[in-house]
Amino acid sequence: MNRPIGVIDSGVGGLTVLQEMMRQLPREKLIYLGDTKRCPYGPRSKEEVQKFTWEMVDFLLEKEIKLLVIACNTATAFTIEDLKNKLDIPVIGVINPGARAAIKATKNHHIGIIGTEGTVKSGAYPEALERINPKIHVKALACPPFVPMVERGIFAGDEAKETVEKTLKPLKSLKNLDTLILGCTHYPLLKPIIQQVVGDNVTVISSSEETARETSAVLEIEQLQNKTGYHPVHEIYSTGDMELFDKIAQQIFINGKYKELIIKSAEIEKD
Amino acid sequence: MNRPIGVIDSGVGGLTVLQEMMRQLPREKLIYLGDTKRCPYGPRSKEEVQKFTWEMVDFLLEKEIKLLVIACNTATAFTIEDLKNKLDIPVIGVINPGARAAIKATKNHHIGIIGTEGTVKSGAYPEALERINPKIHVKALACPPFVPMVERGIFAGDEAKETVEKTLKPLKSLKNLDTLILGCTHYPLLKPIIQQVVGDNVTVISSSEETARETSAVLEIEQLQNKTGYHPVHEIYSTGDMELFDKIAQQIFINGKYKELIIKSAEIEKD
Repeated sequence: MNRPIGVIDSGVGGLTVLQEMMRQLPREKLIYLGDTKRCPYGPRSKEEVQKFTWEMVDFLLEKEIKLLVIACNTATAFTIEDLKNKLDIPVIGVINPGARAAIKATKNHHIGIIGTEGTVKSGAYPEALERINPKIHVKALACPPFVPMVERGIFAGDEAKETVEKTLKPLKSLKNLDTLILGCTHYPLLKPIIQQVVGDNVTVISSSEETARETSAVLEIEQLQNKTGYHPVHEIYSTGDMELFDKIAQQIFINGKYKELIIKSAEIEKD
Repeated sequence: MNRPIGVIDSGVGGLTVLQEMMRQLPREKLIYLGDTKRCPYGPRSKEEVQKFTWEMVDFLLEKEIKLLVIACNTATAFTIEDLKNKLDIPVIGVINPGARAAIKATKNHHIGIIGTEGTVKSGAYPEALERINPKIHVKALACPPFVPMVERGIFAGDEAKETVEKTLKPLKSLKNLDTLILGCTHYPLLKPIIQQVVGDNVTVISSSEETARETSAVLEIEQLQNKTGYHPVHEIYSTGDMELFDKIAQQIFINGKYKELIIKSAEIEKD
């Protein structure tokens, strides 16, 4: 099954999922679409996020994708049920893989979640966790400064460190927390700083890595694996400022992997 | 969907998968069948393993299971394709989840596998790894003494340590190995000793934990989750010596979890 896999995100954050998919699924061709023009989705209404997400999905369906990954927690929280019901290809969001990994990792059942306002308000993570285990203690914290900072290409240095420290302060008092879910695909870019701030006793779960792995499982179960490809050239589309997008993509895709990517501009808005 | 999940193994090894499923899927009722009478399967022919496995499956189908986990690497290697083709419920083996977890964990693409003679000879792990990434370097080693030792209830102490050290000697010369798959569900019981012998630089992957997690994913994708149960009483069947089986089960299910289990004898052989 040599058709591509589609990956959508509100901006550059989903590139952390793409990167993990390139690493864990080197036979698969990937097409990524980041809606950088309208990023961030976090503070937007459910209706707006749904409309924008469908515009992205329509763009990718024309490219004959065999599976869709929603590499954005806000879009997953607001659209996954609708997409699952209406599309005839498998749809994988970032929330359930992260929730499952946290349930596997936790020893004391105290799990923290950080994400955008939209994701936190949606209650999608506590719901996903409770569906699996009703006795999990969940503490969710919205971190509005993180996405705009990462979209400006700032993942390290003093500004990043100060912002993370200040924003995560409310978690400091939670002595019991042994697992923290990065409930936004932008956050893995801040993972080294986040790990430093919360300390080594907390297992930090990257929903990006977990989503890539679960995609691998679904490809096998649904018999959609590409059995012959190897490191194909991937296509990356952005709806917004190409110069900034290109700069951030280069920061993420170090180690020579960048040459396997073609970056293009996309126009997806409908009225 | 409140029907039970079926779990089969050649003996007590699959109890490590059961234990992880109890922990990661506390809403689900589990029915386990260990063919202790005819254990180990490792040195048996493909035909024999297939016949015995089908006898186990028929026993569990009568209990109306909604999903089948083959918690035995040898049985997975020899029967999973046949079972997937012939059963109309999802079938999950232990090989692919372990392979996927190893691909996620490895940094240098050098992966070791230890298992029974049957599993190693079948080539199922190298095949599963290569299906995902053709550039993985694989070294497989059969460890025939491990299963009989664990089935005698010996997981710790001098005998266990000496046996593991001696058996794993051929891995010592492989300087590059950064990931080792425990390709037999008995081996997680020896994990502390194995980790000590291979050293902290090697990530040791328990196919038991990974299989439980992938079962969680498949339950969601196939919409088979039990949404209301919580810590139901599980049923465990054994075809062989009940006294020894009970003793080992007690050793595995410490922490009070043991009281959630009912252990019974089963007669499954057909001519």
